[in-house]
Amino acid sequence: MKQYHVAILGATGAVGKAMLEVLLERKFPIASLKLLASKRSAGTLISMGDQTYVVEEASAASFAGVDIVLGAADQEIAKRFIPEAIKAGAVVIDNSSAYRLDPDVPLIIPEVNPEAIRQHHGIIANPNCATIIALVACQPLHAYATIQRLVVSTYQAVSGAGIAGLRELDEQVDALRNGQAVQTAAFPYQIAYNLIPQIGGFNEQGYTSEEMKMQNEGRKILNQPSLQVNCTCVRVPVQRSHCESILVELKKPVDVALARKLIAQGQGVRLVDDPASAQYPMPLDASNQDLVYVGRIREDMSGHANALSLWCCGDQIRKGAATNAVQIAQLLIEQK
Amino acid sequence: MKQYHVAILGATGAVGKAMLEVLLERKFPIASLKLLASKRSAGTLISMGDQTYVVEEASAASFAGVDIVLGAADQEIAKRFIPEAIKAGAVVIDNSSAYRLDPDVPLIIPEVNPEAIRQHHGIIANPNCATIIALVACQPLHAYATIQRLVVSTYQAVSGAGIAGLRELDEQVDALRNGQAVQTAAFPYQIAYNLIPQIGGFNEQGYTSEEMKMQNEGRKILNQPSLQVNCTCVRVPVQRSHCESILVELKKPVDVALARKLIAQGQGVRLVDDPASAQYPMPLDASNQDLVYVGRIREDMSGHANALSLWCCGDQIRKGAATNAVQIAQLLIEQK
Repeated sequence: MKQYHVAILGATGAVGKAMLEVLLERKFPIASLKLLASKRSAGTLISMGDQTYVVEEASAASFAGVDIVLGAADQEIAKRFIPEAIKAGAVVIDNSSAYRLDPDVPLIIPEVNPEAIRQHHGIIANPNCATIIALVACQPLHAYATIQRLVVSTYQAVSGAGIAGLRELDEQVDALRNGQAVQTAAFPYQIAYNLIPQIGGFNEQGYTSEEMKMQNEGRKILNQPSLQVNCTCVRVPVQRSHCESILVELKKPVDVALARKLIAQGQGVRLVDDPASAQYPMPLDASNQDLVYVGRIREDMSGHANALSLWCCGDQIRKGAATNAVQIAQLLIEQK
Repeated sequence: MKQYHVAILGATGAVGKAMLEVLLERKFPIASLKLLASKRSAGTLISMGDQTYVVEEASAASFAGVDIVLGAADQEIAKRFIPEAIKAGAVVIDNSSAYRLDPDVPLIIPEVNPEAIRQHHGIIANPNCATIIALVACQPLHAYATIQRLVVSTYQAVSGAGIAGLRELDEQVDALRNGQAVQTAAFPYQIAYNLIPQIGGFNEQGYTSEEMKMQNEGRKILNQPSLQVNCTCVRVPVQRSHCESILVELKKPVDVALARKLIAQGQGVRLVDDPASAQYPMPLDASNQDLVYVGRIREDMSGHANALSLWCCGDQIRKGAATNAVQIAQLLIEQK
């Protein structure tokens, strides 16, 4: 079996570390592995399984001989290094938003649009976490009855702001328990015992960048430029799984029994939907694993014959980012 | 000015205590005040302002000479004592769900349908907290353009389960910080750092009782039997303010500027909607006061010409329960 020279760009963040974890779990055929980060992190040791890796400072020279780069850095770092990696002959799977809407860059959820990988020119983009979780949850319904419209309200974990977000929730809870003042840095306001209905900046229509991603990335991934999306994104004091309340309007009717059957047979999803025994998706259950949990499936009672309500939940760091990127890498090597 | 003999039934709970607080704050014309509760709580002292009250055990005889009873007990206690209170000549304003859908009982939000008070026969029902907050937020839009449909996802505070809910969140956080096992009683699962998409029991269609209240109470309050409501109710680890993400479809178009103007002029609401300076409603800001905060107002971008998205937030114990009941009592004495 062919083995690959792999690099992770932004290896010291929450997503970068999870990429390493998932690569090893999935026994990705690795010939060599480089962990790249900023100068500040160079020399950091990262232990995973029985191996310890030394983080190297990323530079244009880092990509010589690398086959696959998993990008877990922010948009600016991505734009600086990805062209260098491509020039060096690597294929980059990038988790930043830098190239997601570039028409020359496939934007892939392996359960939804794996075929798009054939169009890549050196960069494949990993979608936004909330978009991945919503579309993996809805894909079994989409394959059968074609999504027309999504009305989504999100409940997004602090891990969406990386290690700094996770730390901030902990520190704020500690401060409050000790009667101390709460410090904010990763989020604009206190998140402990609070909800912040802003993720990203606002556009002129009052939508945040996170809300627009659900529409714009959704349209591209489903290859459906007229997909209608109404989205409200909210940060909640939960550690690492995003939940979403979704009203999905379909082209033809799907009753609850059929919806459950489709989701039970779907890829990347786990049906958790037994009201009689109070079984439904929750962040604590969905964390630290790769499936998107789907439940609370109900026929709409507000007048739309082909609509279903559902509630889904997925680990934001894993399926929302790292696992999806590693799955794309797996698709890539299957193609070769 | 006439003064009234007032009793609070269920005075030792979170809502009962807040009723006392709001009665005093609003200088309700009280001739005498009885705090009634179960035998177990009889003798408890409750201090409020410069007064201390002794809790009495509720019995059929408790209501002799009482003009107005504010009910803060559960459905069973309500059904047991309210007929006795009416027999004794009192008017009861009841916060339980026991009589809310009874066609002979007005269900009132003073900002929305104060005129319904004229139809009472001794009982006036106080609506469910999430319903009050949603309808107070939407009323200024409804008065101008008539609500046709609401798609609501709620983010409900632990105070919805009373003092026990508030205590459970605190105790779970403490247990987790100390590496101890989490105990659950008020909620079916751990609520600290988690989300529970179940409030109340499930019906055969998979909707919870809390979700059905938004439709059934909403229809009655707006006197609009065909009002369409799609609702998903979720418990979040927040102390005492409920938030709701609402897509409201109206009979005619309302743009964002007009919606903001209507809400700024509305009753019982406070417009908090300035994306440029990151101003929007949050639970921490909306707690311990009586207004429903409304913001994040956006025109729907998913194909409905007359729809708006908004985000609202209100104190569940106060406007969601106690304050609304006291406001009804104020309406009642204005009528007399």
